[in-house]
Amino acid sequence: MRVEIWSDIACPWCYVGKARFEKALGAFPHRDEVEVVHRSFELDPHRAKGDVQPVLAMLTKKYGMSQAQAQAGEDSLGAQAGVEGLEYRTTGRDHGNTFDMHRLLHFAKERGRQDELIQLLYRANFAEERSVFTEGEERLVELAAAAGLDTDEARRVLRDPAAYADAVRADEREAAELGANGVPFFVLDRKYGVSGAQPAEVFAQALAQAWGERPALKLIEDGAADACGPDGCAVPQP
Amino acid sequence: MRVEIWSDIACPWCYVGKARFEKALGAFPHRDEVEVVHRSFELDPHRAKGDVQPVLAMLTKKYGMSQAQAQAGEDSLGAQAGVEGLEYRTTGRDHGNTFDMHRLLHFAKERGRQDELIQLLYRANFAEERSVFTEGEERLVELAAAAGLDTDEARRVLRDPAAYADAVRADEREAAELGANGVPFFVLDRKYGVSGAQPAEVFAQALAQAWGERPALKLIEDGAADACGPDGCAVPQP
Repeated sequence: MRVEIWSDIACPWCYVGKARFEKALGAFPHRDEVEVVHRSFELDPHRAKGDVQPVLAMLTKKYGMSQAQAQAGEDSLGAQAGVEGLEYRTTGRDHGNTFDMHRLLHFAKERGRQDELIQLLYRANFAEERSVFTEGEERLVELAAAAGLDTDEARRVLRDPAAYADAVRADEREAAELGANGVPFFVLDRKYGVSGAQPAEVFAQALAQAWGERPALKLIEDGAADACGPDGCAVPQP
Repeated sequence: MRVEIWSDIACPWCYVGKARFEKALGAFPHRDEVEVVHRSFELDPHRAKGDVQPVLAMLTKKYGMSQAQAQAGEDSLGAQAGVEGLEYRTTGRDHGNTFDMHRLLHFAKERGRQDELIQLLYRANFAEERSVFTEGEERLVELAAAAGLDTDEARRVLRDPAAYADAVRADEREAAELGANGVPFFVLDRKYGVSGAQPAEVFAQALAQAWGERPALKLIEDGAADACGPDGCAVPQP
C-alpha cells in the first residue's frame, strides 16, 4: 500500500499531522508493506524567494489577525505539538518561500532520503532557533548532509533553479486534481483521502479501511501471454 | 499513476516485455506522470547460489526439452528480442540464482537508480559474453557502479545476505497475493494487471484505460480538519 502526503515545510499542522500519522502507522500490523511518499504543496507560492518575515507579522498582515490572536494561535499550536512529543518555538520563527526545499525533497526522494530530509526540515523550521530562510543555500545543504545526501549534489540542485522544479509543480497540480486545497493531505492507494492533522485514530481507521479494500486486479488481455513461470518460459510461435 | 513490474533477471520475456512496455509508455501522453517500480520475482528461487548451469542444459534438464527444442526456443526468443531492438545471445548464456541481484535492485530503488540497474543487469545477462553468475560479487558491483551507485555501498549490500532480503520476499509474497504466477507481470495503480510480454498496443490500451478510470478519492472524516491552506491555518480550539 502507498500513502502519499502532500505538505509544506511552513505548515505547522503538517508537522503535527505527520507525527499523528506515524503514530498510527507504527501500530498498523501491515506497516512494513506501507510506502510513504512526500508530495509538494506550497502554502505561499507567490512569496518571493528573499521575502522573509517574522511569523507573527506574516499572520497579522496576511490573515488580518491581531497580534494577540496570532500569538494565541502559535501558543496553541505549540501545545498540540507538545502532545505529540514535538518541539515547537512559539516565538521568533520566520516565514518565507519553500520552493527550494521542495525541490531538494524531490532530489532526496530519488536518493531514498526523503523522509529523513523532511523531518530535519520540519525540525529546523519549527524547533530550531536558526532560520531555514535567511541563511540561504548553506543551511539547506547542511540539512541535506544530515539527511545523508551528498553535499555537492545538493548544492548543484539548489543552484539550478530548474532542477526538480517541474516535479514540484506536478505535485501541486495533482493536489488540485485530487481536490486538496489545504495541507496536510493524505492519500492512501489513490483511493482514500484524509484531510488535515486528524487524530491518530482516524489515520489508523483509514489505513485499515484502505488495506481491507485493496481491489482485486482486473486482468487486461489475460491468456496467451509470453511469460516465464516456475514451469518454464513460453516458447514463441514462429 | 504507478506501474509496478514484477520480473526476474533470468526471464527472457521480462527483458522483451520491458522494451514493449517502454515503447507504449514513450508514446503515452501522460508518461511524465507515470512512475515505474520494479518488483522482485525469482523464477528459480530454490536454486543454490553457486549452482550455475548453461541455459540449454538447464532447459533440457528442468523442463524435459530436447536439446533441439531448447535451442529453437532460444533462437526464437533471440528473434523476438531483435524485433524490439535488443541484443540477445542465443548460445553460451548461463543460468543461476538471482536473489542477490534482486537485493541489489532494492538498494538501487532506494537510491533512485533502479531502472538504470535493471536495464544493465538484463543487458549483462542476455547480451554480454561475460556471466553475471560466475564472477561473483565484483561483476555485480561493477554493474552497480555503471548504474550510478556507490561501489562501497553496493559491496556492503552484497556481502550482507540479510540486506534487502525481506524486501525481495515481500515482493514475491505480494506477487502471489495479486495472482501472478509468471513474469513479467505489470500492475497499473493496483487496479489493472497485464500478464506477460504483451504487444506494445496492449500496454498502450492498459495505460489509457487505467488513466481514464483513476478513481475519485473517498474522503475519510472530512470536516473539522486541522489544516493550513491559502487562507491560513486552522487555529486549534483549547
